[in-house]
Amino acid sequence: MSVLVVGSTALDSIKTPKAENPRLLGGSASHAAVASSFFAPTRLVGVVGKDFPGRYVKLYEKHGIDLAGLQIQDGKTFHWSGEYELNMNNRRTLLTELGVFETFTPHLPERHKSSPYVLLANIAPGLQHHVLDQVNKPKFVVADTMDLWLNIALKDLLSLLKRVDLFVLNDSESHQLTEEDNVFAALRKIQKLGPKYVIIKKGSHGAILSSPKGYFICPAYPLHKVVDPTGAGDSFVGGLIGYLAKAGGSVDKNIRKAMVYGSVVASFCCEGFGLKTTTRVTRNKIEARFKELAQLTAF
Amino acid sequence: MSVLVVGSTALDSIKTPKAENPRLLGGSASHAAVASSFFAPTRLVGVVGKDFPGRYVKLYEKHGIDLAGLQIQDGKTFHWSGEYELNMNNRRTLLTELGVFETFTPHLPERHKSSPYVLLANIAPGLQHHVLDQVNKPKFVVADTMDLWLNIALKDLLSLLKRVDLFVLNDSESHQLTEEDNVFAALRKIQKLGPKYVIIKKGSHGAILSSPKGYFICPAYPLHKVVDPTGAGDSFVGGLIGYLAKAGGSVDKNIRKAMVYGSVVASFCCEGFGLKTTTRVTRNKIEARFKELAQLTAF
Repeated sequence: MSVLVVGSTALDSIKTPKAENPRLLGGSASHAAVASSFFAPTRLVGVVGKDFPGRYVKLYEKHGIDLAGLQIQDGKTFHWSGEYELNMNNRRTLLTELGVFETFTPHLPERHKSSPYVLLANIAPGLQHHVLDQVNKPKFVVADTMDLWLNIALKDLLSLLKRVDLFVLNDSESHQLTEEDNVFAALRKIQKLGPKYVIIKKGSHGAILSSPKGYFICPAYPLHKVVDPTGAGDSFVGGLIGYLAKAGGSVDKNIRKAMVYGSVVASFCCEGFGLKTTTRVTRNKIEARFKELAQLTAF
Repeated sequence: MSVLVVGSTALDSIKTPKAENPRLLGGSASHAAVASSFFAPTRLVGVVGKDFPGRYVKLYEKHGIDLAGLQIQDGKTFHWSGEYELNMNNRRTLLTELGVFETFTPHLPERHKSSPYVLLANIAPGLQHHVLDQVNKPKFVVADTMDLWLNIALKDLLSLLKRVDLFVLNDSESHQLTEEDNVFAALRKIQKLGPKYVIIKKGSHGAILSSPKGYFICPAYPLHKVVDPTGAGDSFVGGLIGYLAKAGGSVDKNIRKAMVYGSVVASFCCEGFGLKTTTRVTRNKIEARFKELAQLTAF
């Protein structure tokens, strides 16, 4: 079954103490759609400017991503620039040029409206609502977010939580939302806001799911070196929904495996700048790391 | 087979935003020996003053701990006082009165010298060496430490690492020792310093083992509330060596289960002040949480 991914499509200029990488393919929808495409047919809805490089369109196409919902508008593509410190944990934004993204309104092509699996990747909650208004009884809706929306669009986000099945956020965002230091206490509080499933991402410490069937402690793949963590969270949630769509059937039965596949794709994402490593990955390599994680956590 | 535990035996006065608990039974050896006693016959070597409450001796005895190596000296028992902030992660020391601990030299009773499993719980590396000088070809030696010894006794600690099988430290200590932010890179560096097995403890994020058979990602038990984390690391390593001694045979075969049992005992430790909860635990409760952790991590 197919996955609809809506989010940002951007050009990322990423600086680290060791390298500078201008205008890489980035954005939450790009990372999530590529990750999802390893498992299921994937549709991307986003907006880019006339400056968007043709090679990036080809990269989406190489992954079989349906681009009927990718708007190409007069103007410039959303451009984000950030710098990481040596430890790769601290990041600061150098520049944000919204370009055509500033007036983006997601329009779903007719055939996208019946997508059974919908990923509302990180984007303004108002736009996430707007997408949900257009889809017709989806089977499973996942929403991601970022600290910015907790600061400037909390009301929209809280009403969104009543419309989604799974809400994903990272540990600092969960602390901001619930004022709980304890991850498990935070998960319970967020579940009371609406979503049946909640996942808190903890970066290199893995992720925790709270579901009607209880908790799941999901490992992160052991990386000796992180080159660029940008998009790792988007890759996680993209891989997760892609696997759910591929597996079909009961979410409760499949969501643990889905998280581990998400974790595996996120690990590849961290090993190269932007989407460089992710777009070179094969299903075989993904399967190998999935098996490794099973072995690394068995006791 | 029996376990020898050497470390500090102390009175801990612990303040949190909600409560004050004066002169609880504490110290690395107390927590570790009680944890180990759930699995294997355990011998404690330490020192206390004449002020050491008789009820604490009875508590050790209730756990069947062999106290032939507990010196009772003229003077006062080591007294530590600390205060936790609301999030339970930040702790500051209010007071350290070394008392009889200042001149402590561990003397092993004759029958302790043949202990097959030796835990050098957190104590000055010089004293850890002194214990190893007295034991006769132990089967497995574990050493724990703290940031203080990295600061003031690094040379002794580095020579100790060449004499132990398993070295355990927490993530901030591993960063201090190796200057590596990445846990897996840090583990490799520490293994090169001598120990065949290294474990980095990450508190509520669990622990990572590096062994000749590869890594193991060990989960922490999900706690909704931490009352007092003092001694959790000591309980972890105590439970770990206790299980190894009980299981006997190949360490490679048993160490993963041993870590999970350590993690379980540490979770009980966090649920009460000092040893209050740990000393009320039963083997059945431990087994129940062990099974829960297996279920919480399966995919």
